[in-house]
Amino acid sequence: MTALYKKVAFIGLGLIAGSMARAIRRDHLADQLVGTARSASTRETARDIGFCDEIVETPAQAVKDADLVVLAVPVGAMGDVAREIAPHLEPGAVVTDVGSVKRAVIDAVAPHLPANVHFIPGHPLAGTEHTGPNAGFAELFENRFLLLVPLPGTDEHELARLKLLWEKMGSQVEFMDADHHDLVLAVTSHAPHLIAYTMVGVADDLRRVTDSEVIKYSAAGFRDFTRIAASDPTMWRDVFMNNKDATLEILGRFTEELFALQRAIRTGDGDLLHDYFTRTRAIRRGIIEAGQDTDAPDFGRGLKR
Amino acid sequence: MTALYKKVAFIGLGLIAGSMARAIRRDHLADQLVGTARSASTRETARDIGFCDEIVETPAQAVKDADLVVLAVPVGAMGDVAREIAPHLEPGAVVTDVGSVKRAVIDAVAPHLPANVHFIPGHPLAGTEHTGPNAGFAELFENRFLLLVPLPGTDEHELARLKLLWEKMGSQVEFMDADHHDLVLAVTSHAPHLIAYTMVGVADDLRRVTDSEVIKYSAAGFRDFTRIAASDPTMWRDVFMNNKDATLEILGRFTEELFALQRAIRTGDGDLLHDYFTRTRAIRRGIIEAGQDTDAPDFGRGLKR
Repeated sequence: MTALYKKVAFIGLGLIAGSMARAIRRDHLADQLVGTARSASTRETARDIGFCDEIVETPAQAVKDADLVVLAVPVGAMGDVAREIAPHLEPGAVVTDVGSVKRAVIDAVAPHLPANVHFIPGHPLAGTEHTGPNAGFAELFENRFLLLVPLPGTDEHELARLKLLWEKMGSQVEFMDADHHDLVLAVTSHAPHLIAYTMVGVADDLRRVTDSEVIKYSAAGFRDFTRIAASDPTMWRDVFMNNKDATLEILGRFTEELFALQRAIRTGDGDLLHDYFTRTRAIRRGIIEAGQDTDAPDFGRGLKR
Repeated sequence: MTALYKKVAFIGLGLIAGSMARAIRRDHLADQLVGTARSASTRETARDIGFCDEIVETPAQAVKDADLVVLAVPVGAMGDVAREIAPHLEPGAVVTDVGSVKRAVIDAVAPHLPANVHFIPGHPLAGTEHTGPNAGFAELFENRFLLLVPLPGTDEHELARLKLLWEKMGSQVEFMDADHHDLVLAVTSHAPHLIAYTMVGVADDLRRVTDSEVIKYSAAGFRDFTRIAASDPTMWRDVFMNNKDATLEILGRFTEELFALQRAIRTGDGDLLHDYFTRTRAIRRGIIEAGQDTDAPDFGRGLKR
C-alpha cells in the first residue's frame, strides 16, 4: 500500500509531534519523517531516540521536498515559523498546525504562505502534562477528537487526505469554524487550565499551610489540579495570549457563578448548593456516555496504564 | 490472632463505610460488623451484597454492644446521629467519624456523648466520585493519609488502637488539630471542589456552546473537573456549610489571584503568566515525590485499574 504522504516535516519536536511520528511510523502512513526544533538539545535528544529519519537544524531545511508540514510549536511561535518556511515550501505542499487556538494562528500563519500551498489548520484534543521529545506515544490520538478548521476554498482532495491521516492515527475528525473552536476550547480547556494554575498558586502562597502539607494531603481535587497545572508554561502562556477574548469571557462568567456559590455558603443556602451540585453531576454522566472517560473510580493514585 | 475490635457499627453505608467493611473483613480486624443507613433502599442493597454481618434499622440498634462506632454520614447529619445513639452506647466504646470537616463535627457530636465513651474524630483522605453501598473497595485507604484529631484528654490506649486499625487498612496516620485540619482541607480539597463545580456549571449555562459540544470536546482539564464535580451533592453541601470560614477565606484568595492572572491576559503580560505557570509545576513535582500520585501520563481515558 502506498503511504499517504511522501515526506512529513515536523517543526517542533514535543509531545504532539512525537506522538504523530510514532503513529505514522507504526502504520507506515508516510515514507519519510524529518524534524527540527529551535533548541539544540531537543534536536540532539530527538536524534538519539530516533524521533524521525532525519533531524535538521532549521525549519527551512526541514520543509524541503515535504508534502506535509506540521507546525507543532507553541501558538505564539507559529507566525515566525510560517514566515521562515514560506520561501522553501514545495508547491502543492499541505501545511497544518496542531495549536490549541485557531483564529490567532490563522491570522499569524496564513498571510505568510504562498498561494500554491494548502494551509489546513488543525487541533488534536489530546495531550498529557508531559512535554519534550520523549513525551510522545503512538496511542495518544486514539479515540480522541481532531478538529480541522478549513479555510474558504480549501482543496477537497487535500482536506480528505489530511482527515484520513488523522483517522489512521486513531482520531475522530470533525470540522469547526475558527471562532467557535476558540470559544468551545475556552470552556473545555483554557479556562479550566487557568483556574487550576490559580488554585495551585494560592496553595503555594498560603503561609499558614506549608507546601509540604499541601503536598502530603493533596486529596482528590487538588491533586487533579496540580496535574493540569503542571502543563507546559510556554504553550499555555501562548494559549491565553492568543485566545484572550473567549478565555476572559468564560472567566468572567465563572467568577460570577463562583460569587453566587460563595454567597450561598456565607448565607447558609444549602438548597442552592445541593441543586447546583446535582446539576453538574448530569454533565459527568454525559461525558461517560459519550465515551470520553470511564466511570471506573479514580483511586487517586494515577494508576493509568 | 485476636481481632482489634469485637464489634464495629457503621452508621451510614456509603463509600467510606463500605471500604472500611471490606478492608476489616479481608484482614479479620474485627469479629463482627453491623451497619445501618437512613434509607430503606440503601439498607436493602447493603443486605443483598453482604455489606456487613447484620444490617439493622436504626443507629440505636446498631451501636448495641459495639466497641467501635463509625459515624459515616454527611457532616451535617453527625450531630443528630450522635444524639440518637448516645443513650445506647456501650461504656468504654470508641466513637469515631470520617467527616471531611472536623471543628463543626466535634462541636456537633461531642456535647451529646456520655463521659464514659471515647470520641476520636478522624478523616480518611481518600475517596472517589462514586457513592452508595456498592461503591466501596478494600484498597481505598492504601497509601492514603488518615488524619486523627484527638481531643484533650483522649485515652492513649484507645487512640493507639484506632490508629492501628487504620494502619492495618493501609493508611498512614497523622495527628492534627481541628482548626488546622479544616484550613488544610479547605486548600487541598474544599475550595478545589467548589471551583470544579462552578466551572462545570458555567459550561452547562453557556448558550453558544451546546452541552453536547462540551461533552464531546471535554479535553483534559474540563474532564477532570467533571469528575470532581460528580461527587455526592449532599456530602459536599454539608462540607461547605460546615467549613464556611476556611473555605471562604481560600476562595477569597483564589479570586484575588485569578483577577491578577485575568489582568495579565488582558494586558498581554506573558512573562507574569509564564512565571506563574512555572512555579505551579514545582508543586506537582513535590506531590509525585511525596508518593501521592505517579508521573505516568494521564491519557485522559480513565484507564485506571
